[in-house]
Amino acid sequence: LNDVFSSLPTTVFEEMSLLAAKHQSVNLGQGFPDNELEGPESMKKVVASSLYEHSNQYPPMMGVPELRQAVAAHSGRHAGIQVDWQTETLVTSGATEALAAAFLALLNAGDEVIFFAPLYDSYLPMARRAGAVPRIVQLHPPSWSVDAAELEAAFSPKTKLLVLNTPHNPTGKVFSAGELQVIADLCIRHNCLVLLDEVYEHLVFPGTAHVSLRSLPGMAHRCLRIGSAGKTFSFTAWKVGWLSGPADMIKAVAKAHQFITFTVPSSLQRAVAYGLDSEQPFYCGLGAVLQQKRALLERQLAGIGFRVLPADGTYFLVADFAGLLPEGSTEDDVEFCYRLTREAGVTLIPVSAFYDDRSEAPRTLVRFVFCKTDAKLQAACDALRAYF
Amino acid sequence: LNDVFSSLPTTVFEEMSLLAAKHQSVNLGQGFPDNELEGPESMKKVVASSLYEHSNQYPPMMGVPELRQAVAAHSGRHAGIQVDWQTETLVTSGATEALAAAFLALLNAGDEVIFFAPLYDSYLPMARRAGAVPRIVQLHPPSWSVDAAELEAAFSPKTKLLVLNTPHNPTGKVFSAGELQVIADLCIRHNCLVLLDEVYEHLVFPGTAHVSLRSLPGMAHRCLRIGSAGKTFSFTAWKVGWLSGPADMIKAVAKAHQFITFTVPSSLQRAVAYGLDSEQPFYCGLGAVLQQKRALLERQLAGIGFRVLPADGTYFLVADFAGLLPEGSTEDDVEFCYRLTREAGVTLIPVSAFYDDRSEAPRTLVRFVFCKTDAKLQAACDALRAYF
Ligand SMILES: CSCCC(=O)C(=O)O
Ligand SMILES: CSCCC(=O)C(=O)O
Repeated sequence: LNDVFSSLPTTVFEEMSLLAAKHQSVNLGQGFPDNELEGPESMKKVVASSLYEHSNQYPPMMGVPELRQAVAAHSGRHAGIQVDWQTETLVTSGATEALAAAFLALLNAGDEVIFFAPLYDSYLPMARRAGAVPRIVQLHPPSWSVDAAELEAAFSPKTKLLVLNTPHNPTGKVFSAGELQVIADLCIRHNCLVLLDEVYEHLVFPGTAHVSLRSLPGMAHRCLRIGSAGKTFSFTAWKVGWLSGPADMIKAVAKAHQFITFTVPSSLQRAVAYGLDSEQPFYCGLGAVLQQKRALLERQLAGIGFRVLPADGTYFLVADFAGLLPEGSTEDDVEFCYRLTREAGVTLIPVSAFYDDRSEAPRTLVRFVFCKTDAKLQAACDALRAYF
Repeated sequence: LNDVFSSLPTTVFEEMSLLAAKHQSVNLGQGFPDNELEGPESMKKVVASSLYEHSNQYPPMMGVPELRQAVAAHSGRHAGIQVDWQTETLVTSGATEALAAAFLALLNAGDEVIFFAPLYDSYLPMARRAGAVPRIVQLHPPSWSVDAAELEAAFSPKTKLLVLNTPHNPTGKVFSAGELQVIADLCIRHNCLVLLDEVYEHLVFPGTAHVSLRSLPGMAHRCLRIGSAGKTFSFTAWKVGWLSGPADMIKAVAKAHQFITFTVPSSLQRAVAYGLDSEQPFYCGLGAVLQQKRALLERQLAGIGFRVLPADGTYFLVADFAGLLPEGSTEDDVEFCYRLTREAGVTLIPVSAFYDDRSEAPRTLVRFVFCKTDAKLQAACDALRAYF
């Protein structure tokens, strides 16, 4: 069996959700919104009516025109990037397939790919399966800053691709304009391609702006940008994602996509097009709602004894639990998360799961998901307070 | 960009459907049923109600329990193969993802994989992208027979996997029990794994039985079987497929699946579960309906001057057009298909598109799809008759 995959565990998000179900704990682990916070009813209606009013046979391989047009318009409106829907967009089975197809389409054996750690757990296995050699640059807590010299040192003549996730999972960091300029300069100097995982583009708190690296001078023709209906409309079960980027890169990724999934259910595509085209889009209110929820959680976690790290977006909160450990304890984040599920009834994700080399990972950080009802967040805090 | 994918054309099915749309021809190319022949309304209702009554957040990575249970029950009922739903089933984004995930999960660089030609156009690119070296065994027209000595010669100490598609696209061949036994004996002797693409398992004409290679002695623990809701319920836009097989192989493929698409829309999964569990399943009537449609098409094509090859299943008909060419013409199947679209208003698929090495392909065979209304089949025949 394949060497890259057969040695892997099941993704930590599935593992912790199964553990939460087993212990009936409050699940603040896997990143998905509570049902009460899901996207608009009107989008469900479009799925249903599409099943009756449109064909239930293969949509075009690259996506239904309505959605590709909506993705292009959305890019212009929110990222200030003009996109030609016919040559510069592609619809995928969620952002996960967008990532997989991009790695398989862009990379050859031995190509080097630069990643920032912590990083989402599908990146390295898929990039390795595509033949790539990862070069990992650490983000430094508590603000998860990039050291320009460290980043520069990661480039080599073999560098083909840099992968940037902003707003960032698990830290909630939104890369600043200054940081993006440093990254852009290096990518231009080393003539490297960029894969932008921007699935949390709308999950940014008021006062902060998400800037796409693709909008910087010299970057448009080398950057593929990934978006997600799951994150943008809080319908993670729908599995509709998209890519936009220069025609040559989109064409290459479509060659992989056609043999990975071929196409995406048309009823769901049409509903996502409707959601993107809406005059008062669901996602425009998300940042403010999430900021309030984060504040609720942050205040109470601080009172319990967690040290909460700063963030400007996403629905993830990272906190340090070192102050809650007994003197001399060597418990790490994985052990802590298992203990909390079993004994406190609250499930979190250990931040070391976002590192390839656990020896480089912080040992006492955990990730909370806060796109949940206030009642559930309160219940989690009450359970933690009672336990500690 | 990646060497395997960047040199590929767009899949022939998409290419010919776009051409058909451009010329407003009768599209008997890409394999999908006419809307009039799609699956039951009641399944659409389940999609719609599921959006309202169930969570719209990530279903389990391996599929919703209802569908995995239905897949296991369906396997027992129709293939006589007992399957444990919890360890021996996996839901994928259509059969296309099942194939991709299996190749990426099972193969290492240099592993040899045996295929029969003609073959579906995603097999070789994905197997090559997974690092495999294909060994291709020819099926011999007109009955598409396997030469046992040729098959035996394809095995080597590096053979890891054999891929078998039955009922077979594009030929409509249903492998006989005798042929399957020859294949099974060789797989056992060479201890090789098998990937069974059985998406057309229910599209078999009355009088013929589809037998799964997995049901033969000594085969259960080495065979992964692929099924498709698109083919089984005539909803090709739904993109729900599944795998069943031994726990170790399913576990390996799930490791790839979790990073290719992660999971499949739950509303569509629930509807497919409902369809599989139905007391009078839609798919049980398909074979008889398709046989009639094939007869309608076959009779008229013979009258026009095509030589129709025999078949026992699927919704594909292969015919030889050599008798329709002017004396001394060297027109090949691709040129013929382009000409027919432009001049006769009928779009077909050239059979050479199902060969890796076109020098080994028959030059004068075309594939007709007949899961269409009788009126459309008649219109195509009328147009061809008028043209020739
Ligand atoms: C594919 S499940 C993971 C969901 C997610 O993005 C997260 O929890 O980080
Ligand atoms: C993915 S489009 C191809 C449909 C099909 O299976 C065929 O036409 O052979």
